Amino acid sequence: MFRKNCWYVAAWDHEVTEEPLARTLLCKPVVLYRTEDGTAVALEDRCCHRALPLSMGKVVGDNLQCGYHGLEFDQSGACIKIPGQKRIPPGAVVKSYPLIERWKWLWIWMGDPERADESLIPNWWWFDHPDWEVVKGKYLKLDCNYELITDNLLDLSHLAYVHLNTLGTGDISEFPIKTDREEELVRMTRWIIDRPAPPMFQALGNFRGTVDRWQIVETFSPCLTQIRAGACDAGICDPEDGEPEAGMHIRNLNAPTPETENSTYYFFGHARDFALGDEEVSADLFKMVSQTFDEDVEVLEAQQKMLESEPDRGFIDINVDAPGIAARRMLRRDIEAEQH
Amino acid sequence: MFRKNCWYVAAWDHEVTEEPLARTLLCKPVVLYRTEDGTAVALEDRCCHRALPLSMGKVVGDNLQCGYHGLEFDQSGACIKIPGQKRIPPGAVVKSYPLIERWKWLWIWMGDPERADESLIPNWWWFDHPDWEVVKGKYLKLDCNYELITDNLLDLSHLAYVHLNTLGTGDISEFPIKTDREEELVRMTRWIIDRPAPPMFQALGNFRGTVDRWQIVETFSPCLTQIRAGACDAGICDPEDGEPEAGMHIRNLNAPTPETENSTYYFFGHARDFALGDEEVSADLFKMVSQTFDEDVEVLEAQQKMLESEPDRGFIDINVDAPGIAARRMLRRDIEAEQH
Amino acid sequence: MFRKNCWYVAAWDHEVTEEPLARTLLCKPVVLYRTEDGTAVALEDRCCHRALPLSMGKVVGDNLQCGYHGLEFDQSGACIKIPGQKRIPPGAVVKSYPLIERWKWLWIWMGDPERADESLIPNWWWFDHPDWEVVKGKYLKLDCNYELITDNLLDLSHLAYVHLNTLGTGDISEFPIKTDREEELVRMTRWIIDRPAPPMFQALGNFRGTVDRWQIVETFSPCLTQIRAGACDAGICDPEDGEPEAGMHIRNLNAPTPETENSTYYFFGHARDFALGDEEVSADLFKMVSQTFDEDVEVLEAQQKMLESEPDRGFIDINVDAPGIAARRMLRRDIEAEQH
Repeated sequence: MFRKNCWYVAAWDHEVTEEPLARTLLCKPVVLYRTEDGTAVALEDRCCHRALPLSMGKVVGDNLQCGYHGLEFDQSGACIKIPGQKRIPPGAVVKSYPLIERWKWLWIWMGDPERADESLIPNWWWFDHPDWEVVKGKYLKLDCNYELITDNLLDLSHLAYVHLNTLGTGDISEFPIKTDREEELVRMTRWIIDRPAPPMFQALGNFRGTVDRWQIVETFSPCLTQIRAGACDAGICDPEDGEPEAGMHIRNLNAPTPETENSTYYFFGHARDFALGDEEVSADLFKMVSQTFDEDVEVLEAQQKMLESEPDRGFIDINVDAPGIAARRMLRRDIEAEQH
Repeated sequence: MFRKNCWYVAAWDHEVTEEPLARTLLCKPVVLYRTEDGTAVALEDRCCHRALPLSMGKVVGDNLQCGYHGLEFDQSGACIKIPGQKRIPPGAVVKSYPLIERWKWLWIWMGDPERADESLIPNWWWFDHPDWEVVKGKYLKLDCNYELITDNLLDLSHLAYVHLNTLGTGDISEFPIKTDREEELVRMTRWIIDRPAPPMFQALGNFRGTVDRWQIVETFSPCLTQIRAGACDAGICDPEDGEPEAGMHIRNLNAPTPETENSTYYFFGHARDFALGDEEVSADLFKMVSQTFDEDVEVLEAQQKMLESEPDRGFIDINVDAPGIAARRMLRRDIEAEQH
Repeated sequence: MFRKNCWYVAAWDHEVTEEPLARTLLCKPVVLYRTEDGTAVALEDRCCHRALPLSMGKVVGDNLQCGYHGLEFDQSGACIKIPGQKRIPPGAVVKSYPLIERWKWLWIWMGDPERADESLIPNWWWFDHPDWEVVKGKYLKLDCNYELITDNLLDLSHLAYVHLNTLGTGDISEFPIKTDREEELVRMTRWIIDRPAPPMFQALGNFRGTVDRWQIVETFSPCLTQIRAGACDAGICDPEDGEPEAGMHIRNLNAPTPETENSTYYFFGHARDFALGDEEVSADLFKMVSQTFDEDVEVLEAQQKMLESEPDRGFIDINVDAPGIAARRMLRRDIEAEQH
């Protein structure tokens, strides 16, 4: 059902503290906490003794103490203390998950720990670089399958319908998309040529007239999606050359993590290379993006309900579905590969 | 499970506007809206593209536009526009349901559209005639199977127990009922002879003394029930002759429509041939009927829960169950006939 | 799933009045009421006619009248009146359950009525004796299996973790427990030797210095648990002799009754042999016990959820689990014996 040997975002960095945090990821109960030196730890959120969630206990030094009978577990998940007895029974251990803190997120590896490979975390360096201003988004909890979010991000033609009141863009579907299928990613590219800039770009961009805009959406298996978007004065660059250095640039980073097959934690944020340090712009962008994503929630959850009510019915595909279909194929391939 | 080739009430006429209205009928998602000339339309409430409920979109001219990617569907359910592409794929269509506006209600045919026959809509002309004053009821959403409502209406002996505080009638079960089983309807008739009139009848009826009252309840398959009730001066008519012209007359029209097997939209209203134009009487009747039906809801939902908890247990039947049992047999016959 | 030929607490005595009370016990709907002379009656809460819960009706004299069509049932469950007809159909009867009022509780026998034996009700005489001051607890409705409550009561080592803020006891797990397995009960005994008395004991006990404390927890199948607890001046008695007469004594009586496999009514109260008649002490104890049990609810419901999410996973046992494991074995034995 899920790809397991890969990284998912478990939490924002600021969410994990010395207070244990419970989160169900890929149908597994996980507890997150920090040791005294700040290291973030992810353990199975189920005491091996009588199954109480360890997140109901407390952090004692570097260890996690169960809130029912006081058993303590270290960062490796080993039980290292049982009140009232000296002998620790063999098997008194909870699962420990590899956890890496990077790009303001905590990345968890739910599969075989032996195969956890840091280099597979996407290179989202914009979230940790002085030339880029980061707006940490919130996270959303959605009652939908995580692949619906990938579909949504890879088909921005929905902006004109779902986000009519927030993003205020006209219909961009007149500009065709290009789909690239690489081994480990799917890319959707759309250029909107010679049009007025949307209001915020206009206000901050100092453009002479109309602009050329781009949306380059790239999804990595299982479901990590980076959107490179931006605008520059119309006619000064050639779309064939890819994203230009000129103009304004935004990076939307999206990390949906399945809670269950039908519910998802959706982490997102963005970075920009303009209005650096301008907190008002940051606040405006945070508000706009949040409202936009709230609109998506309504659509995605309604879609999920409908899909569940008649799970065997097929779909009619249209042109803009090509990237989403390609991303689903890539993920199916990877899930099947894991199962063999 | 349901009879399909028949008319059900989908909505009150005033409920359907140029804002799409979602309603699940017989387990199917349906969206209702009006075209520019006021024609009411019923389509499947599921976009054939990615399954978003079309009711989340908007009416554009005579068509319905999906709120996710902007596909448009006409009254026949055919997709007639896909943003960004000219070719409409074969199969880009949603189901369209025959819908007739009559007697202040919108009647939908959920089965084979070829067999939709307007003449099968019951002749509830009192709802559209100057000699009758109509009080449109509200509709109730009940968590119970629709046949429990038919049982309830065909056995008014419950008035003395369920509606003791609202209708205030004494026990009418001392007056026996008569059950008629015709090909297409079941009729329960009860005459309450030579008793004081209930308060509202007394206030409006100008009776000399006691009255004879009648309740003639007729259920048509699958579950449409009309109640003809009234009162006249005691002794002036012969119950053998059926409902007399003398006295006061009320028509209660009841149209429960299954949402699912365990939940029901219950539409009801009534017409009277006295106090025409008297809005105070109308308001009083509306209030009384609403309170009465709210009491029924409590009973019917509790009954449903109990039935679900032990679905295989049988019942003990009593005399007054005869009409309800006959109506259930009639419906079973019709459902089985549809399946062969 | 449940042991049936045994007594369970159905309600506190004061809960059952001439207003019918609905309660689901061992997955069966039960209605409780009192006749005119105060006798408590337990009937099946489902009218044999059309399945309405009889608890929605009303008590008429010594009988229960259904709130839908007015059928009346006597204390034996026999239908003795049907409005509008003289003949009572054979089979017009609802189940009647043996019900005994004792020790402020109503004890119900859900199994074969022929085998109901009053002598099997536990001898909890402290709840009805002038030398003991009773504090009737409330009852809790828990979303957990009833055996988790027995586990909880038989392993008081959780006091130091779950009830750190209420009972304020330090870790008692340094004092070992003793487990006795008798034919019809499991006993856990723990003596806490030569320690300061907890605050309330200190305030009321007039102790010279440190105290010896005892916790003697006895569980009878299926799930009745009495806790004898107390304290006396340190060193004046020999734990080998069992509970001493000296000092202060408390009796905690616990009667969880399964509503379903995953939900439980938990009745509890306690008696003490000190501060007799002191209402302030009673109020303090009621408050403390209530807060303590609320803390247990949180733990037990979280445990239940986790167990349901992975029902086939095993546990690691530790020393203090011995009594709980023994009680589970005793109950399994008794359930299996009933099924053969």
